[in-house]
Amino acid sequence: MRRSIGEIDSLCRAALRASGLFDASAAATARTIAAAERDGCQSHGLFRLAGYCNALRSGKASATARPVVHEGAPSAVRVDAQRGLAPHALEVGLPELAARAKRQGVAVLSLSNVFHFSALWHEVEWLADRGLVALAFLNTKAFVTHFGSRDGGPDSLIYGTNPMAFGFPRSAPELPLIFDQASAMMARGEISLAEQRGERLPDGCAIDRDGRPTDEPAAALGGAQLPFGRHKGACVAMMVELLVAGMSGGPFSFDVRAQDVDESSA
Amino acid sequence: MRRSIGEIDSLCRAALRASGLFDASAAATARTIAAAERDGCQSHGLFRLAGYCNALRSGKASATARPVVHEGAPSAVRVDAQRGLAPHALEVGLPELAARAKRQGVAVLSLSNVFHFSALWHEVEWLADRGLVALAFLNTKAFVTHFGSRDGGPDSLIYGTNPMAFGFPRSAPELPLIFDQASAMMARGEISLAEQRGERLPDGCAIDRDGRPTDEPAAALGGAQLPFGRHKGACVAMMVELLVAGMSGGPFSFDVRAQDVDESSA
Repeated sequence: MRRSIGEIDSLCRAALRASGLFDASAAATARTIAAAERDGCQSHGLFRLAGYCNALRSGKASATARPVVHEGAPSAVRVDAQRGLAPHALEVGLPELAARAKRQGVAVLSLSNVFHFSALWHEVEWLADRGLVALAFLNTKAFVTHFGSRDGGPDSLIYGTNPMAFGFPRSAPELPLIFDQASAMMARGEISLAEQRGERLPDGCAIDRDGRPTDEPAAALGGAQLPFGRHKGACVAMMVELLVAGMSGGPFSFDVRAQDVDESSA
Repeated sequence: MRRSIGEIDSLCRAALRASGLFDASAAATARTIAAAERDGCQSHGLFRLAGYCNALRSGKASATARPVVHEGAPSAVRVDAQRGLAPHALEVGLPELAARAKRQGVAVLSLSNVFHFSALWHEVEWLADRGLVALAFLNTKAFVTHFGSRDGGPDSLIYGTNPMAFGFPRSAPELPLIFDQASAMMARGEISLAEQRGERLPDGCAIDRDGRPTDEPAAALGGAQLPFGRHKGACVAMMVELLVAGMSGGPFSFDVRAQDVDESSA
């Protein structure tokens, strides 16, 4: 089956609308999913649509909440998404962030109470397209243990997969330079895709619940993922945790490891 | 031979003064070196003193230049060190950065034309001690090749060792949380120390000039260091490069790989 990016966008928007989501948020989320498919990132494309719809139908994410902008200091703005989806909260917050960054020299946007289930590069790309250098950070439910851990059980999970994204503008006709990478060796969505496809994982991605290295996606998903880059990658995971939870007032990854939350990010 | 931290501080200050450096800069640099020894980081302690003195005596770094503060946008300040040493330029710039961060919510300090030869954690610690979350980035002469490179020759060197440091304040009596790590698998100072001690390097640190993996410090120093964390660490090295050189207007690492510069950082 082949679908154009426009068809994917329309399909997602309709599915999200049918799950009760108001149109501006459905449109923003559909654009984010379609952009992931456009850029070949299956782990954050249509693969996520069912998760969004389920979260809206179960009430885990709010289908009706409108984001509220809180004016902070001159270079800091906070958007309370009131448990709504991130793409729409970002469409509300990013123009304010960009305006402040251009006026002040640098600015920061903090999202709280947000259901963030998508890739980060979409947001840094928006900023880089406007001539701004951008960094984005996100924490998630705890899926990752310390470097060197010999325990892969639930109590060992301390960090989220904690992605960071970076965007740097370039002169037209070049596209901006962008990267978006989990602090885990492998993004959780990629492990889930490997499970669906019956593939093994590369070495060093995860340990099973009993602490043994594993290349089986199911054992990795039920055990503990490992940070990329040994102790240095673990430092990056910790930094993301502190920048996100520590500064937004949102939950730390380990606070929500026992709860039924797909992504508890800020 | 045992020396107290106070003695190390005095010794460094006297040696830097004897190399022609004005007193405020000698005092700041001595404090930075003594702090590294205090914290057990030999690669950035007394080990660096001869390098500082040689740079001052050869004229590579200026012994007399006073840093100039340029007021920028409300949340951005730039200090032109005029080829002077970083510790003093930071003592001039950091209080201004801290004041702006507290007033604006976030602020950035850019150092240009600076001879930065020391660890970064000293600067983020100063900010974290004042209740601020801090990130610091530095590029250096190119010593690091791409992940996956099979060429370790001079033309393969694209990134500096490009350290980043992070500081997060904690409530007293806890000390702030700090890390400071090269984007290279191993800091160059650590490789030099391994060479002095006749030690081998861990796997994955470097390739020799002909592109073969090597655990010999001399071959690593004459070849190409590797980024930590494979392609993800290489992205961090690239990000540091763009944040530092791309935004300060200073040289990119690969611009100075052929020149006689120990650290061409901004």
